[in-house]
Amino acid sequence: MFEAAEVGRTLSKAKFKAQVPVLRAELLDAQGLLLQAPFPVIVLFAGVDAAGKGETVNLLNEWMDPHWIFTRGYADPSDEERERPRLWRYWRDLPPHGRIALFLSAWYSSPIRHRVARRISMAEFDAMLDEIAVFERALTDDGAIVLKFWMHLGKTAQKKRLREFERDPLSRWRVTKQSWKHWRMFDRFVAAADRAIRKTSTEQAPWQIVEGEDHHYRSIVVATAVRDAIRRGLERQPAASHPTPKAKATTKRRARAEVGETLRNIDEEFNVLDRLDMKQQLSRAKSKVAVEEQQGRLNLLQRKAAAKGVSTIVVFEGWDAAGKGGAIRRITAALDARDYQVIPIAAPTDEERVRHYLWRFWRQVPRAGRIAIFDRSWYGRVLVERVEGFATDAEWRRAYGEITHFEEHLVAHGILLVKFWIHITKEEQLKRFKERARIAHKRWKITDEDWRNRAKWGDYTLAVDEMVARTSTNIAPWTLVEGNDKYFARVKVLTTVADRMEAWLTR
Amino acid sequence: MFEAAEVGRTLSKAKFKAQVPVLRAELLDAQGLLLQAPFPVIVLFAGVDAAGKGETVNLLNEWMDPHWIFTRGYADPSDEERERPRLWRYWRDLPPHGRIALFLSAWYSSPIRHRVARRISMAEFDAMLDEIAVFERALTDDGAIVLKFWMHLGKTAQKKRLREFERDPLSRWRVTKQSWKHWRMFDRFVAAADRAIRKTSTEQAPWQIVEGEDHHYRSIVVATAVRDAIRRGLERQPAASHPTPKAKATTKRRARAEVGETLRNIDEEFNVLDRLDMKQQLSRAKSKVAVEEQQGRLNLLQRKAAAKGVSTIVVFEGWDAAGKGGAIRRITAALDARDYQVIPIAAPTDEERVRHYLWRFWRQVPRAGRIAIFDRSWYGRVLVERVEGFATDAEWRRAYGEITHFEEHLVAHGILLVKFWIHITKEEQLKRFKERARIAHKRWKITDEDWRNRAKWGDYTLAVDEMVARTSTNIAPWTLVEGNDKYFARVKVLTTVADRMEAWLTR
Repeated sequence: MFEAAEVGRTLSKAKFKAQVPVLRAELLDAQGLLLQAPFPVIVLFAGVDAAGKGETVNLLNEWMDPHWIFTRGYADPSDEERERPRLWRYWRDLPPHGRIALFLSAWYSSPIRHRVARRISMAEFDAMLDEIAVFERALTDDGAIVLKFWMHLGKTAQKKRLREFERDPLSRWRVTKQSWKHWRMFDRFVAAADRAIRKTSTEQAPWQIVEGEDHHYRSIVVATAVRDAIRRGLERQPAASHPTPKAKATTKRRARAEVGETLRNIDEEFNVLDRLDMKQQLSRAKSKVAVEEQQGRLNLLQRKAAAKGVSTIVVFEGWDAAGKGGAIRRITAALDARDYQVIPIAAPTDEERVRHYLWRFWRQVPRAGRIAIFDRSWYGRVLVERVEGFATDAEWRRAYGEITHFEEHLVAHGILLVKFWIHITKEEQLKRFKERARIAHKRWKITDEDWRNRAKWGDYTLAVDEMVARTSTNIAPWTLVEGNDKYFARVKVLTTVADRMEAWLTR
Repeated sequence: MFEAAEVGRTLSKAKFKAQVPVLRAELLDAQGLLLQAPFPVIVLFAGVDAAGKGETVNLLNEWMDPHWIFTRGYADPSDEERERPRLWRYWRDLPPHGRIALFLSAWYSSPIRHRVARRISMAEFDAMLDEIAVFERALTDDGAIVLKFWMHLGKTAQKKRLREFERDPLSRWRVTKQSWKHWRMFDRFVAAADRAIRKTSTEQAPWQIVEGEDHHYRSIVVATAVRDAIRRGLERQPAASHPTPKAKATTKRRARAEVGETLRNIDEEFNVLDRLDMKQQLSRAKSKVAVEEQQGRLNLLQRKAAAKGVSTIVVFEGWDAAGKGGAIRRITAALDARDYQVIPIAAPTDEERVRHYLWRFWRQVPRAGRIAIFDRSWYGRVLVERVEGFATDAEWRRAYGEITHFEEHLVAHGILLVKFWIHITKEEQLKRFKERARIAHKRWKITDEDWRNRAKWGDYTLAVDEMVARTSTNIAPWTLVEGNDKYFARVKVLTTVADRMEAWLTR
């Protein structure tokens, strides 16, 4: 989930400066129209200390008209507040229609802190999250736009940030013993956040995870999202109620398009796939030894799993020609044929098409003690169906939550879930396509569709990045595999499956 | 919640026979159109044993074309099923688009039974219900129409029913030791059902509680609801995709209107208010003694509550001139003025109008140890706002869930919630209106609006009945007060408040 916010996304000062004037004007325009609209905009900031929550709130107050912004930060509840139900102070502070509220350290803060400190059980934590989901749903049902930002920093980045603050006399006050205490509990904190985000990211009130290291980048991301959310809200209204301001000049329109373009470019440039060290390789000989070793382990582990009735589901996604098939064969070679099933996912059948898209995957949930290997999977919904427009916008956006719930349900039943994205570079893919076209017995493997998919490399990259951000959870993390060298990739896949099984069986 | 399904609703055989042909034709029409539609209809039956679940499913199969109906009943899971996650067998059995599925003893059955037998904790029960809500949401998000019927019988009615079955050689097999074991656990069973219904009644997949004693009544109610649900589903579709069948003749149209009319008449005739014994009365002298006695109790209890920091919220709803004010004054007379606040609810202020409708009530949540008395309340949403059309259909339907969540939140914080509907008959109201018009110092109390409300007595009765059905929960039950005799009513109100406080303080 947070992998995608630890990749070092940055925006140069020059680009930042070029875009701010346009974005500010647009934010002010949107805010002006919002004043007359029959709904509020509620923006919630949570996240890691020092990831820029406070700065971003200040910036939004600077960029927009602060008269119509309600900014609220929360500390420990007062006596007055403690005597009322937990959500009382947030209800009290809800903004009226037409206004923007910026909430800092609000309703997610104490559940997460209590959970990190183990003052509440997991069940109590879940009940609180559930209560929050109901609260947010009441707001969005009533027409409110709810935006939730998780401002993130990796553990090392946070340390660096805190040290910087300490060195500067003007910001030294911000770093307390508490800050370092929190830093030392980073992993626990992030685990609780993972669960909170997973349980409360809905279609109506989704979380957006923002990498907080670079202030240019995070400011533009948040401000753009706020602008877009206000616009979306206004667009829902009947046309009469909000006159759209005429675009003032072509130059302005061009500049406006540029903001979106810039963000897209950043996300294409800095993404989880981009961070992989694609140079990694292994000699054929070394790979052979390692593969055999891991296959031996896997065979033993699977026999143990079968005896215990523990099932495993392995999911393979990846670019065309990334080597999914080869990796799968290395797994199945280690197994008893009665114990596994490989399930290739192509276009849905007639029977599948007339049911919920998850139905075809539910059908294939393995019996106790078996392994199901999916060659492509339910992630098609947020990859190919998203990019090619086979699913509507609402459908694929909703799918992240549906998928996470599906996977939670599997894992709660005791099923181990291992998910791989096999990555290759665009150049490597071209090389492989050409090779396939050349070699007769591989020619069937390459179709026109593969070339068409390749043309949308950028769109797919964005989709993969968002998929990892939204569905790589503690209970079912994605493993990204550097696949340019197939010898390296196969060993990584086998080792990961065996490691995860081993850990799962000794839980 | 179940009060409204224990009032003895019946439909005469003659009326039943008159309506069946029309209803069957309409069901078949609707089913025919559904065949081409891109969504399924999923109907779930749960409830008390012997309340007619199976019979109703059989009847629907008889009245419609059973080829396109998927009927599924569930027993204990098989080995095959046990090896998969809990919801697997229901996913497997989902109907394709265009079909109707009738599910008996399905996904709610085992959570409720496990909870009744105390095999699972309350937290586990809640987690299962949550999982179900997510499942149903996935279905409705995908376009499915989901209907859930709780077929109900009161404890005595169930006993009678089981005895009848035992006497008849043809149905004797249906009554087992198990049936009587369940009957003895009726209260526990109903408590678990209360929670399940409360937690999973959503706008998209609402529960409908059906009184199961009379088979004519329950058959017409369920069949009508199924017909209407299919029609609603079809209406959502773009016009082109489903040609509306032309009404065949005026007589048919008239007969059709009659079905709705009949159901409405039954609900107006048999409802929770109708069951009250309005003859109950108390002499002025006796009332005086009892009022003083209860006020003494209340005063002591409130001092205890204040010391413990326990707050109380008392809600008064009722007909105009039902005597809410008088009852409230009898409560406040017993209290220290610093301890309570009476909150009269009239039209919302400007500030309130531009926020979520619950905001004005959240503001008034009392501090620890105090009493807040609401003279009218958040129930206005499902009473006056519903009847007068101030709230949209979606708004007031959604409000039942929002209100239940609000009340759960209050109760979870330790607040005691006491809710009264003060009932008077239509005749008694007229008498009081006339009296008010006559007596100068009471004249201000009666307005044109009161007369307008009175004209909608029937609509209000239906709204009160549904309010009790949907919001009288274990945690915050409604107390219906027979108010024709104000002396009786005041004592009942005071005694109820004192009893509930006493029970709450010694939990």
